[in-house]
Amino acid sequence: MHAAELIELKRNGDEIPAAELREFVAAYARDELPDYQAAALLMAIWFRGLSPGETFALTEAMVASGESVDLAAKLGRRVVDKHSTGGVGDKTTLALGPVVAACGAPFGKMSGRGLGHTGGTLDKLESIPGFRVELSTDELIDQVREIGLAVAGQSADLVPADRKLYALRDVTATIDEVSLIAASIMSKKIAGGASALVLDVKVGEGAFMQTLGEARRLAKVMRRLGQEAGLDVVCLLTGMEQPLGRAVGNALEVREARDTLSGGGPPDFRELVVVAATHLLALSDLGLDERAAQERVTTSLGDGSALAAYDRWIRAQGGDPDPALLPRAAVVLEVPSPAAGFVRELRAREIAAVAMALGAGRERKDAAIDHAVGIVCRAKRGERVERGEPLAEIHARDEAAAGAAALDLLGAYEIGEEPEPRPLVLDVIR
Amino acid sequence: MHAAELIELKRNGDEIPAAELREFVAAYARDELPDYQAAALLMAIWFRGLSPGETFALTEAMVASGESVDLAAKLGRRVVDKHSTGGVGDKTTLALGPVVAACGAPFGKMSGRGLGHTGGTLDKLESIPGFRVELSTDELIDQVREIGLAVAGQSADLVPADRKLYALRDVTATIDEVSLIAASIMSKKIAGGASALVLDVKVGEGAFMQTLGEARRLAKVMRRLGQEAGLDVVCLLTGMEQPLGRAVGNALEVREARDTLSGGGPPDFRELVVVAATHLLALSDLGLDERAAQERVTTSLGDGSALAAYDRWIRAQGGDPDPALLPRAAVVLEVPSPAAGFVRELRAREIAAVAMALGAGRERKDAAIDHAVGIVCRAKRGERVERGEPLAEIHARDEAAAGAAALDLLGAYEIGEEPEPRPLVLDVIR
Repeated sequence: MHAAELIELKRNGDEIPAAELREFVAAYARDELPDYQAAALLMAIWFRGLSPGETFALTEAMVASGESVDLAAKLGRRVVDKHSTGGVGDKTTLALGPVVAACGAPFGKMSGRGLGHTGGTLDKLESIPGFRVELSTDELIDQVREIGLAVAGQSADLVPADRKLYALRDVTATIDEVSLIAASIMSKKIAGGASALVLDVKVGEGAFMQTLGEARRLAKVMRRLGQEAGLDVVCLLTGMEQPLGRAVGNALEVREARDTLSGGGPPDFRELVVVAATHLLALSDLGLDERAAQERVTTSLGDGSALAAYDRWIRAQGGDPDPALLPRAAVVLEVPSPAAGFVRELRAREIAAVAMALGAGRERKDAAIDHAVGIVCRAKRGERVERGEPLAEIHARDEAAAGAAALDLLGAYEIGEEPEPRPLVLDVIR
Repeated sequence: MHAAELIELKRNGDEIPAAELREFVAAYARDELPDYQAAALLMAIWFRGLSPGETFALTEAMVASGESVDLAAKLGRRVVDKHSTGGVGDKTTLALGPVVAACGAPFGKMSGRGLGHTGGTLDKLESIPGFRVELSTDELIDQVREIGLAVAGQSADLVPADRKLYALRDVTATIDEVSLIAASIMSKKIAGGASALVLDVKVGEGAFMQTLGEARRLAKVMRRLGQEAGLDVVCLLTGMEQPLGRAVGNALEVREARDTLSGGGPPDFRELVVVAATHLLALSDLGLDERAAQERVTTSLGDGSALAAYDRWIRAQGGDPDPALLPRAAVVLEVPSPAAGFVRELRAREIAAVAMALGAGRERKDAAIDHAVGIVCRAKRGERVERGEPLAEIHARDEAAAGAAALDLLGAYEIGEEPEPRPLVLDVIR
């Protein structure tokens, strides 16, 4: 079938046969099909979606476009991995990896860099002096074997079709479609070679998926794609109306993750780490049920073993884990509460915009990031503040930037009557 | 605004501001915007359509992308033109031009070549020995001034944005959308510089618009675009369930057009020529009302003046109008009716497929056409045939091609009870 006929099929709401769709993607990855036909197909998919069969065919074709790693075969162990659809203040990997490794399950993750209000996991790690994110696949495997934990930048040979398609989606307004998102994420996870995966699907104004319904749909599609490829997947649907934890900004988040590994840290972030780690351990080859897994996780946060795993990991990748060495912003401005009362809302999206304006994130791929800047939310939703008490700290390059951020930051807060509590984990799909 | 944001606007069903849409098209025509963004926008337009304001902005931008001709200013007369959305056996221009010129109104038309089951007007004209379709704009104007009539291939400088967009639509399954079709046709007509236009919108299985509702919508959009650009437009909606006239195939159609100009020809084709010519004369600067216009048209078909205008025109463009010189197919096979009765259906689409298989049309731009081959439908809808009487003639390159076509041709016919008559002209929108 000709490419234009496949586009027409999808445009008309019909199903593209799996073999034809695989060939379309393969030809595109080999540069044998022009961008404009892929762009037209993507837009038709945006309107019509993909059937389960089509989504799986797309995922398979993307995996087949590059090299795959079979970590389990290389290590003789089940390796676990996690992925988040992205939220504000989401530093989960930084704490989750060490906890899981400390509990005895190998954790290996390849991470994309990504755009956004704050950097991705790799950017956060790069705020640690000396830390090296570029590991070869062999280095990654060796490090997981030796210390049980590695996080590296994604190899260019992994799922090149996804890289090409993602870049095209980015400039053709076809990013936000469930089956395309699912295939993009899962193709990388399948090619990355872990045996089990916890997916954290963020829901709410600060996330890609704005409603629980959408998030649940995405989670189910990803879970099915994993199953069909032999990858065990548990999906957490977690709230992203307010930032996760208190810190938003690269070095600030590293510090908070380390605090959490020392048994401290914000309650919501700690909760997410415990839940995600529990599921990962239950999916690992340790033979633990969820109750036993949770006990082991909680212990690792109290007895210093998770913190020790973190320090080992950072050193293994060339970094110095001493938090005193993390970069600090020149100016720290406390923003006082204009009224007494409870924090009713702390809107993640607006906090993200402030962090971006401070220089914590990037809009373009090649933009530089300021690792030191960001926000610490001293008061979060449901917490009580008195008038004049600090709501948040702004960590900025200079006084001018801090001043400009203060008003916007106040706009993200709503102070008033005590709100109904909202759970962090909205659903678990397994 | 960035291109991706405009695509997103349209994708979401919002309106693109006119200035932004014009700039998008202008940038695309200047090769400053990639094909893939134009392809994504086209697919979003396929799903969402364009508002009247957007359609006009698109048309304006396409006209502005190239040179425009003002025939009225150059000639000091109102020049009339016609356009058909394309049907099977549609040789209307070949007869309409001479009739209108014989009646005293200047007729100047630039024609595209186009793909399809049979060639376009230019291909039909090229079956005449010596006929030259490539005229410069000055040659076209001079010829209209001297003999009142010229039909030429479209200059490459006319609406380059449409040529580029049309080629892209062709390979991205975004041809069949009303506002895109309307803007494509009308931009060329506006840039071509006629003062008045009769648009023949074909309706039915053998046409682009399959229902009267769709056709009416397209007609109204085109009429409004004409009005906004100062071009008077009358739209005829005409049936295209069966071929127009009896001949389908390039030289066969030239012969039939000439027969009609001699006062003969098939009744349906003659009717369309009379109706279209009447409207064109009424729109011209001759000051005729429709009754007077129709009288003059009918006279020109009876007194030899239309035929004389045809012969003058063909000679002016280097051709020899003698029908005996038209190419003839090596084999003419009469296909007998398998039963006695009335022709209930004669499906244009299937006749078109047979003509294509015989070599009368082209699927690819660079394919060669056999001017001699085609079909003559001896019996048309509503006509009575006896068993064994010829239903149609197949004009083919060889016996094998003729034999292969015969069965398919029979499949296009349905013989039975006398059918209800169907009008040719379904509506006139003025």
